[in-house]
Amino acid sequence: MSQANRGVVYMGPGKVEVQSIPFPELALGKRKCQHGVILKVMTTNICGSDQHMVRGRTTAPEGLVLGHEITGEVIECGRDVEFIKVGDIVSVPFNIACGRCRNCKEGRTGICLNVNPSRPGAAYGYVDMGGWVGGQTEYVMAPYADFNLLKFPDREQAIEKIQDLTLLSDIFPTGYHGCVTAGVGPGSTVYIAGAGPVGLAAAVSAQLLGAACVIVGDMIPERLEQARSFGCETLDLRQDTPMADMLEPILGEREVDAAVDAVGFEARCHGHDHSHEQPAAVLNACMDVTRAGGQIGIPGLYVTEDPGAESKAAKHGNLSMRLGLGWAKSHSFHTGQCPVMKYHRQLMQAILFDKVRIADAVNVEVISLDDAPRGYADFDGGAAKKFVLDPHGSVTA
Amino acid sequence: MSQANRGVVYMGPGKVEVQSIPFPELALGKRKCQHGVILKVMTTNICGSDQHMVRGRTTAPEGLVLGHEITGEVIECGRDVEFIKVGDIVSVPFNIACGRCRNCKEGRTGICLNVNPSRPGAAYGYVDMGGWVGGQTEYVMAPYADFNLLKFPDREQAIEKIQDLTLLSDIFPTGYHGCVTAGVGPGSTVYIAGAGPVGLAAAVSAQLLGAACVIVGDMIPERLEQARSFGCETLDLRQDTPMADMLEPILGEREVDAAVDAVGFEARCHGHDHSHEQPAAVLNACMDVTRAGGQIGIPGLYVTEDPGAESKAAKHGNLSMRLGLGWAKSHSFHTGQCPVMKYHRQLMQAILFDKVRIADAVNVEVISLDDAPRGYADFDGGAAKKFVLDPHGSVTA
Amino acid sequence: MSQANRGVVYMGPGKVEVQSIPFPELALGKRKCQHGVILKVMTTNICGSDQHMVRGRTTAPEGLVLGHEITGEVIECGRDVEFIKVGDIVSVPFNIACGRCRNCKEGRTGICLNVNPSRPGAAYGYVDMGGWVGGQTEYVMAPYADFNLLKFPDREQAIEKIQDLTLLSDIFPTGYHGCVTAGVGPGSTVYIAGAGPVGLAAAVSAQLLGAACVIVGDMIPERLEQARSFGCETLDLRQDTPMADMLEPILGEREVDAAVDAVGFEARCHGHDHSHEQPAAVLNACMDVTRAGGQIGIPGLYVTEDPGAESKAAKHGNLSMRLGLGWAKSHSFHTGQCPVMKYHRQLMQAILFDKVRIADAVNVEVISLDDAPRGYADFDGGAAKKFVLDPHGSVTA
Amino acid sequence: MSQANRGVVYMGPGKVEVQSIPFPELALGKRKCQHGVILKVMTTNICGSDQHMVRGRTTAPEGLVLGHEITGEVIECGRDVEFIKVGDIVSVPFNIACGRCRNCKEGRTGICLNVNPSRPGAAYGYVDMGGWVGGQTEYVMAPYADFNLLKFPDREQAIEKIQDLTLLSDIFPTGYHGCVTAGVGPGSTVYIAGAGPVGLAAAVSAQLLGAACVIVGDMIPERLEQARSFGCETLDLRQDTPMADMLEPILGEREVDAAVDAVGFEARCHGHDHSHEQPAAVLNACMDVTRAGGQIGIPGLYVTEDPGAESKAAKHGNLSMRLGLGWAKSHSFHTGQCPVMKYHRQLMQAILFDKVRIADAVNVEVISLDDAPRGYADFDGGAAKKFVLDPHGSVTA
Repeated sequence: MSQANRGVVYMGPGKVEVQSIPFPELALGKRKCQHGVILKVMTTNICGSDQHMVRGRTTAPEGLVLGHEITGEVIECGRDVEFIKVGDIVSVPFNIACGRCRNCKEGRTGICLNVNPSRPGAAYGYVDMGGWVGGQTEYVMAPYADFNLLKFPDREQAIEKIQDLTLLSDIFPTGYHGCVTAGVGPGSTVYIAGAGPVGLAAAVSAQLLGAACVIVGDMIPERLEQARSFGCETLDLRQDTPMADMLEPILGEREVDAAVDAVGFEARCHGHDHSHEQPAAVLNACMDVTRAGGQIGIPGLYVTEDPGAESKAAKHGNLSMRLGLGWAKSHSFHTGQCPVMKYHRQLMQAILFDKVRIADAVNVEVISLDDAPRGYADFDGGAAKKFVLDPHGSVTA
Repeated sequence: MSQANRGVVYMGPGKVEVQSIPFPELALGKRKCQHGVILKVMTTNICGSDQHMVRGRTTAPEGLVLGHEITGEVIECGRDVEFIKVGDIVSVPFNIACGRCRNCKEGRTGICLNVNPSRPGAAYGYVDMGGWVGGQTEYVMAPYADFNLLKFPDREQAIEKIQDLTLLSDIFPTGYHGCVTAGVGPGSTVYIAGAGPVGLAAAVSAQLLGAACVIVGDMIPERLEQARSFGCETLDLRQDTPMADMLEPILGEREVDAAVDAVGFEARCHGHDHSHEQPAAVLNACMDVTRAGGQIGIPGLYVTEDPGAESKAAKHGNLSMRLGLGWAKSHSFHTGQCPVMKYHRQLMQAILFDKVRIADAVNVEVISLDDAPRGYADFDGGAAKKFVLDPHGSVTA
Repeated sequence: MSQANRGVVYMGPGKVEVQSIPFPELALGKRKCQHGVILKVMTTNICGSDQHMVRGRTTAPEGLVLGHEITGEVIECGRDVEFIKVGDIVSVPFNIACGRCRNCKEGRTGICLNVNPSRPGAAYGYVDMGGWVGGQTEYVMAPYADFNLLKFPDREQAIEKIQDLTLLSDIFPTGYHGCVTAGVGPGSTVYIAGAGPVGLAAAVSAQLLGAACVIVGDMIPERLEQARSFGCETLDLRQDTPMADMLEPILGEREVDAAVDAVGFEARCHGHDHSHEQPAAVLNACMDVTRAGGQIGIPGLYVTEDPGAESKAAKHGNLSMRLGLGWAKSHSFHTGQCPVMKYHRQLMQAILFDKVRIADAVNVEVISLDDAPRGYADFDGGAAKKFVLDPHGSVTA
Repeated sequence: MSQANRGVVYMGPGKVEVQSIPFPELALGKRKCQHGVILKVMTTNICGSDQHMVRGRTTAPEGLVLGHEITGEVIECGRDVEFIKVGDIVSVPFNIACGRCRNCKEGRTGICLNVNPSRPGAAYGYVDMGGWVGGQTEYVMAPYADFNLLKFPDREQAIEKIQDLTLLSDIFPTGYHGCVTAGVGPGSTVYIAGAGPVGLAAAVSAQLLGAACVIVGDMIPERLEQARSFGCETLDLRQDTPMADMLEPILGEREVDAAVDAVGFEARCHGHDHSHEQPAAVLNACMDVTRAGGQIGIPGLYVTEDPGAESKAAKHGNLSMRLGLGWAKSHSFHTGQCPVMKYHRQLMQAILFDKVRIADAVNVEVISLDDAPRGYADFDGGAAKKFVLDPHGSVTA
């Protein structure tokens, strides 16, 4: 029953195009995927980590179909699929996981051992992440469907809340994971480094977790304004003021309980001199502002190889971390891809029962698949928005 | 500098009086308490567990000065007190703890080994709890002050928010502890048995912890109305309808993720036949409605000896628990006094940063010390209120 | 390729027979199990919970093929099996789990939602546990093989250590789970109620977890002798001496840090008067001897319905628990089937690296399949042994 | 009752002397310490972190009385001490803690807020750690005695096992903390970087925690031999062989479950080129050998300022960490001083019940106070020993 299909394709640094691509099969090359399903994509989001590829900071090959934030309707099930049914509307975790290896059994679906020959962990449409076809498309295949997919309990309700639910495939859990690993709970004071979509998702997650005060730092005024729109305090890092001096009037203290690095390896210096990258700048700032005994969650991506880095050390993923400071404060540091499955069901419940408004927090803008190149460009320019593609026009309808 | 003092005194079943009592000393009988402070009581609340004594369900002696929910201003410090200062406004955890024994070091301040010769754990103004003088008074002594007391950071702010902060000494942490031990977190569905002040505090705590849906059950319509006032769903247990049938339209499921027993040993049957006590009724209902794998938090008091119980078994604290059902569902059960200190600082932060409105949730009514007997009577009659005594007229001023 | 098969069959109270049974299929009735494998059984153990059925304490039907403690060699794989291969030697967790439901994803494989239409949780060869054919047989089918089975890394080594490894399917993890849920760790003092195989497995698990002192109580001298053989202290519960008086000379204290109930619902009174059952006797004793703040792990089985119970309450799984005592001590209680998969890999490692000698601890005796009826009888008589069936004579060879 | 006193004094790089020093007072400068006790020191150990000062790597002033690993007999109690008594034999945690601040209440006694004006955390006889007088002396004052001190339950037994118990003040808990924060448990495979006393203590702790296989790496053959003496596997890091190649024949795998950095900032390269320091070498090696999802415990000291470092970055505590690798493997990193009190009671129990032989593992050698300079020199030279000073000749007697 092969059909037409279209998707967003990486065509070299700075360039993405919407092209015709093959209709998905229940296979990855020679590997059969009878455990998979074919989805008609309802929504699929542009992610900051896609930008790393599009900026040419990775070894992503031209022709790569992009997209790992997928929500869709099941239109075909492999013969081994037992519990997911045609017609289900589902959220797809960006991490592909087999559900059968040691790591999956321990809930560590971000580092599944069976889905990527070159290292633990896989994702859709991402360089070095196992070769799975991306989902910024009309149709996509999702493997190990019984294990991976989160079915929404009610079809009508799902469609109604799709702008929130679409964020369950990556950034809401990712921001939440940053907060959980930072030890955020009721009454915490929290610093979130970065007011991009992951940072904003972390901020709203901190609120959901009961934080007393959430403070977001960035250098883009529109993003800070977005953070203030749902009750966050903000730090404008273009200033040269020491961060502790900015925290004190807000908190009555010069340190926070917990910090989340939602920036990653493309970090820049604070203050006037932020023209060049300093990959450890955010981590060192997090150590500086976090109280002794605090934890630092690091959902922001750090890479093993960064050929486009400014310094030789950074090209190999080495950072000049001020670990001595962290050690003196007994900090702990928590890295890695968010294991989406660990959180997505609960976060779905929070959405369905109206306890959180994640789409408003990250400022979702729904655009057509054909508008994806513009979305990429605007987002790269620092737009305080989260772009959601609507390949079949079903959301805007 | 001895002064006059007055307090609420238990004078036998059903009877409390406001009497002149001695001004507090830095001692408990022959035990010196140079680690203690004298407090001018700002607020002190009537607790449901006081009612157990006043109803004559315990061996409390006549003449006992009642009250274990105390907030006050420090007016004198023992010579060993190093960090708490005269003028500080503080919340006093109802559990008295030494800060030096194995249990205190492990954060288990509800079962301190050094403050009660007869068993682990102590409290102010409570039978079998170490003989410490109660705090429904004008002045009271608080031992091990550096360890026990929570200082509010700002005096003005403390006075402004005193109706919320006064609940940090017991019921807010107690309700919260019930939820924490029940495993409540973001996205949880929660059943709270009992809509008295502890139940309502548990309900608002569940919300603060991010619960998706909080459902409160009781047999008093006014209390259920109070629960609905801050967004809870409710079950009217005067009905004979099976609870699962009442849950389903709310949740789309017949079970909750977590349950909290905020009733304790004076439980009654549900439905029409609730005229007599059935001490295990609430626990068995919690097992019934909680999903397999769930946890049951039990902040409601169960006693070792209950001379006023209806059955012989219950007189010795034995309950007819349907443990086989819980076992089949892999439930866990978490009992005991809340270790207030484990939670009060964070909950204070949640209050000070306006993340929670606990006073509204439990419907605080401030009354004078002289009105305490009326407060006891109204509360015993099922009033959907939490009575806060104001011995010096400072709140109402 | 259907072949002959034989197995142990329940033929009514007190009666088991070895009979010809059908060769297993990759199905359970009409339910296809292409995710399953056919195993040639290497070893399969008689369990104490089998005895509950054989004693006629359950509604088990005549003709039920018994056995849920299975180790075997894979001889055929369903088409959906991807990672387990023919020739693998594997341990089979007694709990059957789909690996795809909410509970499995959370590691709660003992209460899988997809393998038993009547309640969460399933097992091989057990009443009310989903109808899966038991494994005290020559051949058996294991469903969801990729998820459930633990492959031993080296065939030779597996055969050499088979008497230890065979205990990974149930009692070693079950005893270990009891200790973990009781909070046992380095330096703990631990009371284990019951010196049957699960109790002994709990005792050796406590040692592996670093316990300082492990004390086992029972009423059968041979079982206590077995406990002493690997360094446990013992309490002979035929005595009327209060348990605290027996603990004091061992510990210098009258209470332990943690307790494990490895007896369950067929408990009897201690002392001279142990002629009749008192289902809560062990739980109440555990509360009595466990320090305030301690936890009580309950791997011993409690049932929802017990038609053979002596009292009316017990027939419905109701016990007269002294919960008031536990509440005063802030105890927590942890029930349910052990989720074997949570532990079996690590315990296998402990066996393979010679850190634990579980077969010696529980006194394994290997017997032939035909000798199973004798094994059942001896075990029921209180033999201090764990009977392991060897259907193909491969162990004794 | 002032008496004579003598102690080990730092007299400049490479130089320690035993000198007459003042008899301790219940005070630190103007700060009264009526909560303290005077101890007659029974044993006091030379620590690797003392070597950092003696090597001149810190700003320690001449005249500093050294020593933070103290076991002694109480000879005088301040008036506020309530539970510790004259005659008690006690272990003194090297971290001084007030027992009353937020961090102490949370069990984070390594970063107490009230005992060091310049930063969280204090220790005896250590630069920048609050100015408390060291304990490589005949007599020493220990503040907040009720909170800090661990009393041994039996005097005779304590004297008999003093060579093991003396290690409770620092290195046994410190090594254990490294393992706990690395997630070591039953069945783990563990890599310990460094076979000095902390590394060996970590190795024996891993065994106590149930590890299946403990592998220790170092460049000093005698220290590796010491590790093998109690059942560890070892890696000789003077070889240029990749570590994974050395692990594979031991484990059948190329990675371990958990790693502990017991070296710290004075790390050197592996292989032939280990002539100069490379502060991140050990951390990067730990990331390299630890499986995805593993944790890295870092008890080894990293400093905020290291004026003697070879590189400019390292002088300010900056390390070239390969965080990108750790991120790809979802590692977490756990730093800071061990909060001794969190562990010392349980580890004492393990010693008293003969479950662990820590003195043998670290190769304790008892020497006189006067021999301390020789002990420092031998230890600095790489002796595979832990030197324990015996100021009153009570151990050797």
